[in-house]
Amino acid sequence: MIIDCHGHYTTAPKALEEWRKRQIAGIHDPSARPSASDLRISDDELRESIESNQLRLMRERGLDLTVFSPRASFMAHHIGNFSVSSQWAAICNELCYRVTQLYPDHFAGAAMLPQSPGVDPVTCIPEIEKCVKEFGFVGINLNPDPTGGFWRSPPLTDRHWYPIYEKMVEFDIPAMIHVSTSCNACFHTTGAHYINADTTAVMQLIEGDLFRDFPTLRFVIPHGGGAAPYHWGRYRGLAQALQKPELRDHLLRNVFFDTCVYHQPGIDLLTSVIPVENILFASEMIGAVRGVDPETGYPFDDTKRYIEAARNLSPEDRYKIYEGNARRVYPRLDAALKARGR
Amino acid sequence: MIIDCHGHYTTAPKALEEWRKRQIAGIHDPSARPSASDLRISDDELRESIESNQLRLMRERGLDLTVFSPRASFMAHHIGNFSVSSQWAAICNELCYRVTQLYPDHFAGAAMLPQSPGVDPVTCIPEIEKCVKEFGFVGINLNPDPTGGFWRSPPLTDRHWYPIYEKMVEFDIPAMIHVSTSCNACFHTTGAHYINADTTAVMQLIEGDLFRDFPTLRFVIPHGGGAAPYHWGRYRGLAQALQKPELRDHLLRNVFFDTCVYHQPGIDLLTSVIPVENILFASEMIGAVRGVDPETGYPFDDTKRYIEAARNLSPEDRYKIYEGNARRVYPRLDAALKARGR
Repeated sequence: MIIDCHGHYTTAPKALEEWRKRQIAGIHDPSARPSASDLRISDDELRESIESNQLRLMRERGLDLTVFSPRASFMAHHIGNFSVSSQWAAICNELCYRVTQLYPDHFAGAAMLPQSPGVDPVTCIPEIEKCVKEFGFVGINLNPDPTGGFWRSPPLTDRHWYPIYEKMVEFDIPAMIHVSTSCNACFHTTGAHYINADTTAVMQLIEGDLFRDFPTLRFVIPHGGGAAPYHWGRYRGLAQALQKPELRDHLLRNVFFDTCVYHQPGIDLLTSVIPVENILFASEMIGAVRGVDPETGYPFDDTKRYIEAARNLSPEDRYKIYEGNARRVYPRLDAALKARGR
Repeated sequence: MIIDCHGHYTTAPKALEEWRKRQIAGIHDPSARPSASDLRISDDELRESIESNQLRLMRERGLDLTVFSPRASFMAHHIGNFSVSSQWAAICNELCYRVTQLYPDHFAGAAMLPQSPGVDPVTCIPEIEKCVKEFGFVGINLNPDPTGGFWRSPPLTDRHWYPIYEKMVEFDIPAMIHVSTSCNACFHTTGAHYINADTTAVMQLIEGDLFRDFPTLRFVIPHGGGAAPYHWGRYRGLAQALQKPELRDHLLRNVFFDTCVYHQPGIDLLTSVIPVENILFASEMIGAVRGVDPETGYPFDDTKRYIEAARNLSPEDRYKIYEGNARRVYPRLDAALKARGR
């Protein structure tokens, strides 16, 4: 089977955005604050939004299951305070949960967290608990920069983040390191902030020794690892200068890269530089890049085509990228699949 | 001949760093402020620092000439005010000028600018004038983030930067877009901040229409263009979504990538994705990554080896990357070489 480890609910019914606008208006005008129950989206509306979009494309492209989380750019952890983020995360996660219930064969949930700038990440634990225990989610998205492009949190290797890591280890779930909208005019959200965050996370993990404290912690770095695989020699050399072990030991026991790289040469580089055990299939479809590549005639984000065409991959390699690695990195997904006889 | 378009004076005599420390101490203690004439470095000291380092390696590797600018991480535009940056830039540029006078066959100068956070870039014009007219420099380094990792300046496409661009057009000199030390704990200087800045600059230029206002303006994006070539499909797709022309027309008439990518697969990707006309040979030697790659037995930053080994390049392609493109992007270098019969 083919598991896409990186999908967001970018096509949620318009009512969600309307509710969010009211919530934002309510930050400064308490009379305008909506309650969670003011948001009404029917199962039919959810089905319509999924079947005409993600599920249609998954069927067209031959993808079986997507690890599905709330829309990344809409997380916008910089807006309001913890209470605002908390209500928003709960609503967005519940919608994803309902999608996983409507299509249990095709979607597994990953949670957005109610992060808020300057707020202790320990406040995210109840949402993680709920999403894993009640909703059966298999992972989380962790935002290393809740300010939206101003980077005021400590590096991911700092003890600041340890409460979340302890919970991840307890539940045996991975985190995808994923920022949200940039409100810094220097950084285009999907063209600079996302890719920079991936690169930044990799370098933070190289600089630190986080996995000495958490040997079983697992991170997925999206968008093909940002710039890291392209500059793998640079990173190997920097690790050497920092007197760290080789990246294979220092980083790649715990860090995985997805395949959201939207052209063949990029995937060829990724799959030739990074061990196949560390590559997870993903497309982030109906996401940052929705057009058709005029050079190929196919959508940029149809990443399965690039994996299929990568000449250096054996059938066994493709199995690992498509399915085997995901079962290992997301053990709760593996257990859920096995419980359904898959 | 082989022109390395990206070299910094990372090996300047210790007296320079001592002077800088005194200058920084003097920011809050006027009695400690050194004058420029307090810095005394003899020609012999300059020769020693160059011949045992850059020139030795250039000879070993078969490189003929380096475009040479002050040490990037030492620019540290975030320290002090414009007056501090101005004095520091003048001193650093003059040292590079002296190196170009001692070794006119091997070094051509590129200027650091006296940028300072929040200060109008027009204040950099006198230093540019001096470096080009009196010192014969052939380019400048422009820092898109003088705050050192907090990114408070407008994007490079903003009119904020136009005074510098007007001067660049007048003098027909390119700018390398190069940040300095990061003082944001999230960003390792050479592992995250440098690469992120490259990626950020590319996306800013894609998002804007700067070259409509300055059709002859030329930027060199160092470190192989950050993440951009690896994610070239993403950037082509984002340009399409932003309804921009194809990147070949929108970006590549004015933007060039250097070859500071420290492993073979990265150079193979760069040279297969980006037209050879847009690639300039560079190594940034004795820079971010000074070690020997245990996988090859050669220094990571010996980028000529990767260019030589890139199978998709013809001899004509290599001529362009090593020399032809640099003569076109740095016309003052070309003129200076021709004046010396080269």
